[in-house]
Parts: sequence; structure tokens; C-alpha cells
Amino acid sequence: MYSNHYIQQSFQVSYAYRVFFTSHLFDPANTCLKDYLQEQASGHYRKRLLVVADEGVWQHHPYLQEQVSAYLQAIKEVELAAVMVIPGGEAAKNDEALFFRLADAIDQHAIDRHSFVIGIGGGSVLDLVGFAAAVSHRGVRHIRIPTTVLSQNDSGVGVKNGINFHGKKNFLGAFAPPAAVFNDAHFLTTLDARDWRSGMVEAVKVALIKDAAFFEWMEEHAAALTARNMEAMEELVHRCAALHMAHIGGAGDPFESGSSRPLDFGHWSAHKLEQLTDFSLRHGEAVSIGIALDSVYSSLLGWLDQAAADRILHLLQQLELPLYHPLLDMQEPGVSPLVKGLEEFREHLGGRLTICLLKAIGQGAEVNNMDTALLQKAGERLKELSYAY
Amino acid sequence: MYSNHYIQQSFQVSYAYRVFFTSHLFDPANTCLKDYLQEQASGHYRKRLLVVADEGVWQHHPYLQEQVSAYLQAIKEVELAAVMVIPGGEAAKNDEALFFRLADAIDQHAIDRHSFVIGIGGGSVLDLVGFAAAVSHRGVRHIRIPTTVLSQNDSGVGVKNGINFHGKKNFLGAFAPPAAVFNDAHFLTTLDARDWRSGMVEAVKVALIKDAAFFEWMEEHAAALTARNMEAMEELVHRCAALHMAHIGGAGDPFESGSSRPLDFGHWSAHKLEQLTDFSLRHGEAVSIGIALDSVYSSLLGWLDQAAADRILHLLQQLELPLYHPLLDMQEPGVSPLVKGLEEFREHLGGRLTICLLKAIGQGAEVNNMDTALLQKAGERLKELSYAY
Ligand SMILES: NC(=O)c1ccc[n+]([C@@H]2O[C@H](COP(=O)([O-])OP(=O)(O)OC[C@H]3O[C@@H](n4cnc5c(N)ncnc54)[C@H](O)[C@@H]3O)[C@@H](O)[C@H]2O)c1
Ligand SMILES: NC(=O)c1ccc[n+]([C@@H]2O[C@H](COP(=O)([O-])OP(=O)(O)OC[C@H]3O[C@@H](n4cnc5c(N)ncnc54)[C@H](O)[C@@H]3O)[C@@H](O)[C@H]2O)c1
Ligand SMILES: [Zn+2]
Ligand SMILES: [Zn+2]
Repeated sequence: MYSNHYIQQSFQVSYAYRVFFTSHLFDPANTCLKDYLQEQASGHYRKRLLVVADEGVWQHHPYLQEQVSAYLQAIKEVELAAVMVIPGGEAAKNDEALFFRLADAIDQHAIDRHSFVIGIGGGSVLDLVGFAAAVSHRGVRHIRIPTTVLSQNDSGVGVKNGINFHGKKNFLGAFAPPAAVFNDAHFLTTLDARDWRSGMVEAVKVALIKDAAFFEWMEEHAAALTARNMEAMEELVHRCAALHMAHIGGAGDPFESGSSRPLDFGHWSAHKLEQLTDFSLRHGEAVSIGIALDSVYSSLLGWLDQAAADRILHLLQQLELPLYHPLLDMQEPGVSPLVKGLEEFREHLGGRLTICLLKAIGQGAEVNNMDTALLQKAGERLKELSYAY
Repeated sequence: MYSNHYIQQSFQVSYAYRVFFTSHLFDPANTCLKDYLQEQASGHYRKRLLVVADEGVWQHHPYLQEQVSAYLQAIKEVELAAVMVIPGGEAAKNDEALFFRLADAIDQHAIDRHSFVIGIGGGSVLDLVGFAAAVSHRGVRHIRIPTTVLSQNDSGVGVKNGINFHGKKNFLGAFAPPAAVFNDAHFLTTLDARDWRSGMVEAVKVALIKDAAFFEWMEEHAAALTARNMEAMEELVHRCAALHMAHIGGAGDPFESGSSRPLDFGHWSAHKLEQLTDFSLRHGEAVSIGIALDSVYSSLLGWLDQAAADRILHLLQQLELPLYHPLLDMQEPGVSPLVKGLEEFREHLGGRLTICLLKAIGQGAEVNNMDTALLQKAGERLKELSYAY
């Protein structure tokens, strides 16, 4: 009855960025960032810089207040517009007003698409700054200078940005690759113990699904890592960042349009734990428990041999990371809050789970179902273990 | 002194969508949208639909209130979550609270990345709805059902979305291609005269820079178009949409990372006119004046021959579109507000203009400078002409 026809549109968009590894980035003798900015400069367009820094970083590195401005002002090819210092930590992502302040600053300081917003801070500040940049003028370029283990080895080198909205974690966000990332190892020296330790969990995670040799390296260097040996940490950060980047760039789905998310190994329960504990657990602590749970589950399923599961739990313990939380316990007959969370997660995914488990150390594989009784059993095993220690 | 090294990341992301041309989209006998939704459905995932409709469309097509729900509820493969009706027109893009209401609705109605937000309305509602979808969950899919000439032949078939922020037009936005677009010609029958006419300006624009034959076709059909002949309008919309899509998909820069923007022919002054008149001019009316100005300028520059410039002005007049506005007049010695606007625009672009002018009808070409005296002269020519008529 109706004659319909259509025009087909299709195109590709290319993205590229470099992740630099350095230390003392703003030391005048370190030309890493300067070289990059000069290379970006063009004779035709003015390049302005808006720096947004994490208050926590400024407190632990007070010399930066002068050093950052001096370093950037000395580069003739760019114009430093302003340095803003904002609260760090998750609170930064909960505050809509802060997001609007950043958008206003991008406007008022005339940051156009030839210019850069430069975020300096932990994953929270970078997520917020990246999002504000991604949606201002439909996307101005942002440079990330991550200052925590987590942001240097995972969140800061990837393509996701976002803020929390009405209590929903990361509800507003965008896939927007950075223009460049500068990982400065020196920042890590001032992290508190929990941030130091919990940032390493993403390395355990990505090693478990992709790189057995890296896992073994961590077993060998667990004591050094716990003792805050910087050389060991730099290697961990580098290998972990490289594995994350290789997955994002190489697996064919950088903006996560499909259902497969191997980098979320251990994360389904971690997200639930973070939420149920009102974020009193650090992300990495929650993921540590999540990895422990899904590793034991993988072994109960017959996928992973018992010895391998034990090695995983042992490494997490050596890194002084938690394996268990009371929310894994049954609180009604047969179901723990976490098992309930699995149901919600299935709903959230549109009715079908896609969860990464382990076939072996270094080899992840996906399932679309989880057996709740077996999951409960895995939780009990972790409870026993945690009492045994 | 410092040893720096880097990891290079690079990848491509593919986008594809279809723009359907139909009429009476929600008539149960029209299976165009139904076929599409069924084709998208998968056995594994629940697909939910959130419809967001322009109040102005609902008023002019009151039968839709029942028809849309009935049509969508009859498709077993999808679940209609809700139909929201929101104010139409530019006001929709000025209202932050409305943006947050949409994000909340996407959350509360469990619109996940297997689901769809369906916008029905003019370019304003579609820009808002597309943006809310683009940043919720880092991007849920949105279907556009444009109901004005402008949105069917230009804004609705492209990749840009956005809202106004603190008085800055389109300041917050994203490049986010739709999942699909359904152009229903029947909607156009209820447009008021100004929206009917001004939507045609984008067709004049794209014909001038890319397609002389289309320009001639418009000259031949100007009377029919002005008399609201639907057949002529459908052809205009189709050809104009196809040219816009071919440029976006084919020119190698769909997300506008470079400086070249030929589709913005006539727009630098139009944006300024819209702003200075507090948006009392429709976008198309402002662009009509902008096209007239840059066409006369092109001829004064010796690029375009006089006869061609006259044909352009004549076509715009036949379509009952304006050629002139008092803001083109000098108000201080030597400079009109518009010429001042050119300076601001240069600033906005980072210090260097990239402006499309005409070499011939059907052939645009870029310049990086404009001669303000010549521009002033072009404005005077338009003033004389407008008094002559
Ligand atoms: N975008 C992604 O892909 C992605 C991935 C994983 C996690 N994340 C997000 O990252 C956030 C967590 O980031 P995080 O773990 O880096 O913590 P964080 O950014 O929340 O920072 C934790 C604390 O450390 C302080 N701090 C930062 N650098 C410091 C330094 N060098 N010395 C001393 N103190 C310092 C901060 O001020 C803050 O108080 C979460 O919001 C999470 O959702 C994002
Ligand atoms: N995203 C892009 O690429 C892009 C490109 C150009 C313009 N735009 C934007 O598009 C907007 C203008 O859109 P527009 O010209 O479609 O106008 P509009 O959306 O502002 O609508 C104008 C009026 O027409 C009413 N209306 C809509 N459909 C109708 C119908 N079928 N019958 C009767 N009334 C109807 C609306 O309720 C409103 O009152 C501007 O905000 C502009 O910035 C976006
Ligand atoms: Zn994580
Ligand atoms: Zn336009």
C-alpha cells in the first residue's frame, strides 16, 4: 500500500592517540609534554589550554601550583588560559554544578576545537573533565594526566568518560578518546595505601583474561609491589595499560556496541558491592572480591583447575586485597544480596547476561548464564578462606 | 635527561543508518517502521521503546496520540515503555530541566543499549532527544522521526545533536548518528508558512555548493513549492537529504574534526543574525539572507558572474524568503553589526576563517579571509534590491 524507500548512510571515523610514560612531567628539563604541544601547534590557529586539576594532587604536590603554569607559559606555541583546581575523588562525579562550572569555563576561556582541556588527577577527575570536554562544542580535545594507579593503568588510557547522575554511577557519559595521555610515575609515590593497592587489581584482572606471563610476573613481584617498589609499579602500570589499550584498539568494538566485555571480568559483582556499600569500598577492592568470586565460581564449574584458583586468591592476598565481604552471605533463604544483584544485572543488560569467566590463568571465556546455587557456594568458600587467614 | 616512551593507540569506528521516506508512518497499513523494529529485534534481548514527541506535532495531528501507541504495542518484538510529550521549538533546547527529565526517563524506563529512544518532532526536539540519548549510558540508540522541512532535509538526517547552554546556541552536544530516520511527508502538510518556506533554504544552499541541476530544478518548481505542492516538496526533501548525507558520509570528516564546512555556506552571518535578533528570525530565514550576502560577495569578488548571483537572489525571492536585514547596515562608520560578527567568528574559529563561497552555481570553494569593505558593499546592494521590490 505504501511505497517506502531509503538512503543508506555509512562511514568510518578514525581515532588515534599516544600514551606517554614519563616522570616529573612538569620539570622544565622534561620536554615530553612540551614536545607534544609544539607538534600539535599550527601556524594558523591559536591553541589555548585550560588546566583542571585534582585538589588532592595539588595538596600532595604543592610545588605544582607554580610549576604547571611556568611550564606551560614557557611554551610559545600555546596560550595558557587558566588553571582550575577542583575537589577530587568520587564526589567530583556526583556534583552536577561542577560539571556545569567546567562547561562554563570551556566557554569563557574560549577553548575551541584547536585548543585543549588538560585534566590532572585521579580517575574521578579525569572522567568528569573528559565528559565536560566531550560535550562542549560537540567535543573539544582533552589531554589526560592520570595521577593514580587505577587511572594510569586502566581508566585514563581508555575511551570512556562520565559522571554520576541522580545516584546512578556513570549514568551520563560519552565515548571520547583523549588527544593524548601522560602517565607520570612520580605521582604514584604520594598515593595512600588503599589507592596504591586497589589500583593493582585491574592488572590482576587483565592478566587473568589475557596474559599468563604477566600474572606470573606479578606473583614474582608481589612482595616488591606491596613494599611500594617504584620500578615494579612502573612495569605493572605499563603492562596493564598496554593490555587494556590493545583490547580497546584491537578487539573490534572500542565503543562497546556489542555485548562482549572481557575487561569487565570480576566487575558485575564489584559494581553491586560498591553500590551496596555506598562506595565505602574502593573500586579495586570491590573488583578484588569480584575476581575472587568469579575465579572460585570458574573452578566450581570445572573450567579452572583448583590449583589455578588458589594461585589467584593467594596473589590477591599477597597484594593485601580483600577476597570476601558479608554481602556475599545469604540473608534470605537461598539468596545473598549479591545473587540478587545478578538478577538486576541481567535485567540491566536487556534480559541476557554476558559474563567473562576463566578457562585458565590468562584465558577468559564468556557465559550467558550463572548458576545461583554454585555462585552461593563460591561465596561460602571465600568466607571460610577469609576466616582461615 | 628524562627517558620517555609511548604506546600508540589507533582504531576505527563504523557507523551506518538508513533514512526512510514514507508517509502516514503510524497507519497500521504502513509496515515501514514495524519492519525495521522487527529486523532489529533479537531473540536474546528485550527491546524497549521510549517515545518523546513534540507537543506542536501532537496538536496538529491529534489522532497520533492513539495511533502511535497502538502501532507500537502491536509489534510483539518490542515493548513500548512510555510516550512523553514535550514542548516543541527552540524553547525545548533552552531548558536544562527538560534535558534532565529525559535522562531520568531513559533511566526509569530501563532504556538500555538494546532499546530505542524515538524522537518525533522538529529539529529542536530531535536535537534535544538525540543528545539525551547520546549521553545516557554513554549512548543509547535513537530513532528520529522529523516533522519539519528543515529536520527532514538537513538536521534530522545528519549526525549532530545538542542543546543550548547559558544562552550559547548548541553549546552542549555530541556527534551521535541515529539508528534510523523516518521522513514522513504527511507531517509537512501542517507546517505554518514560515516553517514551510524557511526549511527550503537548506536545499538552495546545498544545491549552490554541490548540484547545479538541483538548483535549476528548484527554479523550475519555485511556484509549485511556494503553492505547497506536496509532490514537489517531497522531491526537494529527498534530493536535499541525499546531498547532505553524501557529504557527511563521503567527504571524509563526518564528525567535523577539520576546518572545512561547506555545508555551512551562508551560515556564518546567519548564526550572527539569529543571535542578534534573539531568534525572532527562523534559522532558514537567516540563512536565506546569509546566502544572498555571500552570493553577492562572491560576485563582487569576481568569482561568480553577475547573472548567476541574480538567479540566486531571484530564486530566494520566488520562494518568499528574505534577502536583507537592517543589521547589514553600517551603524558605526565603516562597520555593520554583521561585519563585527565576522571578527567574532574568526576568534571563535581559533584565529583563522574558513568560509565557503561560490565559484559558480553548484560549485563552492573556500576562503580564509573576507574583505570587510567588499562585504559592506554586498550588504548595501541587498538593501537597494530589497527596496526595489
Ligand atoms: N573511564 C573509565 O574507563 C573508568 C574505568 C575504571 C574506573 N573509572 C572511575 O575512576 C574513578 C576512580 O578513580 P581513582 O581510583 O583514580 O580514584 P579517585 O580519582 O577517586 O581519587 C581518589 C583520591 O586520591 C586523590 N589523589 C589523586 N591522585 C593522587 C596522588 N597522586 N597522590 C595522592 N592523592 C591522590 C584524589 O584527590 C582522591 O581524593 C571512579 O569514579 C571509577 O568509576 C573509570
Ligand atoms: N542537528 C543539526 O545538524 C541541525 C542542523 C540545522 C538546524 N538544527 C536545529 O534545528 C532547530 C530548528 O528546527 P526546525 O526548523 O525543525 O523547527 P523547530 O523544531 O524549532 O519547530 C518549530 C515549530 O514547529 C512545530 N512543529 C513541528 N512539526 C510540526 C508539524 N508537522 N506541523 C506543525 N507544527 C510543527 C514545533 O512544535 C515548533 O513549534 C534549531 O534548534 C536548529 O539549531 C540542527
Ligand atoms: Zn575496573
Ligand atoms: Zn542550516
